[in-house]
Amino acid sequence: MTSIDLNADLGEGFGRWQLTDDERLLSVVTSANVACGFHAGDAATMRRVCEQAAERGVRIGAQVSYRDLAGFGRRAMDVPPAELAAEVAYQIGALEVFARAAGTRVSYVKPHGALYNRVVHDEEQAGAVVDGVLLATRADATLPVLGLPGSRLLELAAKAGLPAVTEAFADRAYTERGTLVPRGQDGAVVTDPEAVVERSVGLARSGVVISHTGTRVEVRARSLCLHGDTPGAVELARRVRARLEESGVRVEAFV
Amino acid sequence: MTSIDLNADLGEGFGRWQLTDDERLLSVVTSANVACGFHAGDAATMRRVCEQAAERGVRIGAQVSYRDLAGFGRRAMDVPPAELAAEVAYQIGALEVFARAAGTRVSYVKPHGALYNRVVHDEEQAGAVVDGVLLATRADATLPVLGLPGSRLLELAAKAGLPAVTEAFADRAYTERGTLVPRGQDGAVVTDPEAVVERSVGLARSGVVISHTGTRVEVRARSLCLHGDTPGAVELARRVRARLEESGVRVEAFV
Amino acid sequence: MTSIDLNADLGEGFGRWQLTDDERLLSVVTSANVACGFHAGDAATMRRVCEQAAERGVRIGAQVSYRDLAGFGRRAMDVPPAELAAEVAYQIGALEVFARAAGTRVSYVKPHGALYNRVVHDEEQAGAVVDGVLLATRADATLPVLGLPGSRLLELAAKAGLPAVTEAFADRAYTERGTLVPRGQDGAVVTDPEAVVERSVGLARSGVVISHTGTRVEVRARSLCLHGDTPGAVELARRVRARLEESGVRVEAFV
Amino acid sequence: MTSIDLNADLGEGFGRWQLTDDERLLSVVTSANVACGFHAGDAATMRRVCEQAAERGVRIGAQVSYRDLAGFGRRAMDVPPAELAAEVAYQIGALEVFARAAGTRVSYVKPHGALYNRVVHDEEQAGAVVDGVLLATRADATLPVLGLPGSRLLELAAKAGLPAVTEAFADRAYTERGTLVPRGQDGAVVTDPEAVVERSVGLARSGVVISHTGTRVEVRARSLCLHGDTPGAVELARRVRARLEESGVRVEAFV
Repeated sequence: MTSIDLNADLGEGFGRWQLTDDERLLSVVTSANVACGFHAGDAATMRRVCEQAAERGVRIGAQVSYRDLAGFGRRAMDVPPAELAAEVAYQIGALEVFARAAGTRVSYVKPHGALYNRVVHDEEQAGAVVDGVLLATRADATLPVLGLPGSRLLELAAKAGLPAVTEAFADRAYTERGTLVPRGQDGAVVTDPEAVVERSVGLARSGVVISHTGTRVEVRARSLCLHGDTPGAVELARRVRARLEESGVRVEAFV
Repeated sequence: MTSIDLNADLGEGFGRWQLTDDERLLSVVTSANVACGFHAGDAATMRRVCEQAAERGVRIGAQVSYRDLAGFGRRAMDVPPAELAAEVAYQIGALEVFARAAGTRVSYVKPHGALYNRVVHDEEQAGAVVDGVLLATRADATLPVLGLPGSRLLELAAKAGLPAVTEAFADRAYTERGTLVPRGQDGAVVTDPEAVVERSVGLARSGVVISHTGTRVEVRARSLCLHGDTPGAVELARRVRARLEESGVRVEAFV
Repeated sequence: MTSIDLNADLGEGFGRWQLTDDERLLSVVTSANVACGFHAGDAATMRRVCEQAAERGVRIGAQVSYRDLAGFGRRAMDVPPAELAAEVAYQIGALEVFARAAGTRVSYVKPHGALYNRVVHDEEQAGAVVDGVLLATRADATLPVLGLPGSRLLELAAKAGLPAVTEAFADRAYTERGTLVPRGQDGAVVTDPEAVVERSVGLARSGVVISHTGTRVEVRARSLCLHGDTPGAVELARRVRARLEESGVRVEAFV
Repeated sequence: MTSIDLNADLGEGFGRWQLTDDERLLSVVTSANVACGFHAGDAATMRRVCEQAAERGVRIGAQVSYRDLAGFGRRAMDVPPAELAAEVAYQIGALEVFARAAGTRVSYVKPHGALYNRVVHDEEQAGAVVDGVLLATRADATLPVLGLPGSRLLELAAKAGLPAVTEAFADRAYTERGTLVPRGQDGAVVTDPEAVVERSVGLARSGVVISHTGTRVEVRARSLCLHGDTPGAVELARRVRARLEESGVRVEAFV
């Protein structure tokens, strides 16, 4: 029986500001990418989300980011590798305290926003993220890293002995080579909910998605990334999960 | 044989800015209060100081603070207790990652600046700091808290089952009741190096210091706090340590 | 004919986060308290709100705050007066650039959150806010300060030659002495929309409000503060304005 | 008679941290690039430096930066142009308040660190900085921009009608084409004080410097940038100024 993980970004408020509908999303996903304070996520929110995730058996992941609250971590930054590695470890450690207090652990690491995009190709920053994860795992190298198939990040994580977990996006268009059509290009985002649901099933069951030119392209992923910060997002996430289960896909965390 | 711990604030730079002479201080003290990013201390500095402390066998303490880089944590803030507890835990967790990566652990917690002063009397904030420490220790309640004798902080820490460790200041004047003469008052700070050295020995050997009115007052402390951010501070710290050892006091960490 | 000003907090998002419904509020109020970056309000938002306000003829006020994004300026801070004065001036100057670029000026200053509450009674901080306003006006002392009647802030502003403008809250309960019933006390906030509307008319037309014990109490105010960050807030604001106008009150800025 | 301006970065502390020796530098330079709070420079420091500069007749420039205290503005960031323009204007406005309070004005704008380097070639960000300056000058386009000869920044500033002022570095090696040898390359920085002094005179008197390959290369600049954050920097700056004056060069601000 096929299984798939569903992950989403959570805890992306900061102080007075709310963004993600954490409670409802936690009833849908199996893995929660929790913001760690660098692009979003104050300490009290991190604590609350960890408690709620632990209660529901949802895995907690550290959603590490550039230090950039004003830009929500969406502005690429030329952070020297040693600083970046330390900042990644810092964020994981801060989240770990709340995961443990809730009776569980940080189960994986996923870069956020501009850092996520950068480590697809940037050798140096990808290496720095891996170094940060290794720092935080104290060399026992057991903390999985979540990212795009074919990314430098996953290559370097695997090379370092860290479990490298692939993810796909049901609401993003893919090229014929299996890479994402860049945001900003026409049709980069799939907005029809039924199409998103169908693509989710296709990705989970057969590892195949229809590219933006109409060809079938293989995209092997152990996790699907759902979005939680747009109107209707939680409802769509529920539909995706329901359809996956109806299609005989077991929805479960990858760890 | 009497023993005493020597602690000092370290890692209090931030990015481009340096403040404490970390390397030289680490050759004198037995406990390092490492800034955790809220009043000072970037991630790369935290990592470096933890490595250097571990190499020298110096204990690592989390110097937790209000979130206030602009004010260096010296401005009292009315942080609601739940937020404050989460922020304390966040800082401990972030530092723990670097302590563990260096092969050791966070061995104690000491509030910084305005928070340090506030938890002497403020029941609510003292309780929040203790809650934060408990959060970070996942209820096994083994992480010592360092503070002023008689402070609400130490009372509540002890009540919660946390080791409560007292400290004294050889360069601060004491009242007849054994409390610190408030900064700002005449003679609050002892500036004569030889006097500081002698007071250190008196505090360590007999738990007694001469008050600002000339009376002998008992101040029992397991740790002496040295300052590292003023010219001549490291030299004075060395003299204190040397004289303590000559006087037959064993200088060693309290844990 | 009686006239009243309607003010509300605007531009209280930050980067990715939105809070206030700026565009709709600007169609109701006559004075916009624009966040200046210390508790909320990034530069791009400040620019946009200033442009929108200028287009509609809404006055722009600098909503100055403690430097506290994580706490949204709601946590009292013991900021030394010289620092606070400089921070107030800094915020006014930053906003002035966008007000001028939009063809208008910063027309008044209103403290936000914990600072607003503190300068009701705190002589030192009230004086620091006034000093900051004077700094920003380069001693020509023409920039009005908006605050509670009887507050130290308005007393010191008036003494310094700055226009002191009083405001009232139609959705807050008043004591028999004309002060606000503290939040947290039962009945501190008036939640019935019709009651808020009626109190607004009473405050504007006769300077009288019914206290929480049922007595008539005089509250003279040139401005009414409306809230914009709760569901239904804009709708309520519209109703207040409509009823004021039906009652023969001219709704117009105080400057 | 030839004249040259001497500029240096000032006010680059933040809260507890000091960096530049502001008072002594102000006795040497004719133009002070004052940090505006984004990479360094708290409000109280900005106020103090503006007062000291005004007393000495030193021109005040806004040293605008990416929003990056942790990286001291030295990490390139992909800030969208509209955000960057607003952030530049915000910083200029904040500084203007202190310049005016000191009886003078912000006389020019100079980007700092990574932003300075980026706008040499990056059309979009250079345009955003110019837009920010225009915003801050309310379209009267009189605020000079200081930068490298041949940079996109100065081209776009000139195109927008802003005075474009060139600067040179006596302590940096130049290529045969008159561009700076990138930091990190061997010999990029001239460390011999006497060489720096001589190069200063050559640059000021004849607009010529010896390139790192030994050829004479023309570098026309109205301002020389001195550094103030290294040991001996102030002493070197004094020698540069003294030698310039002995050589018959008038040292004076470019505005």
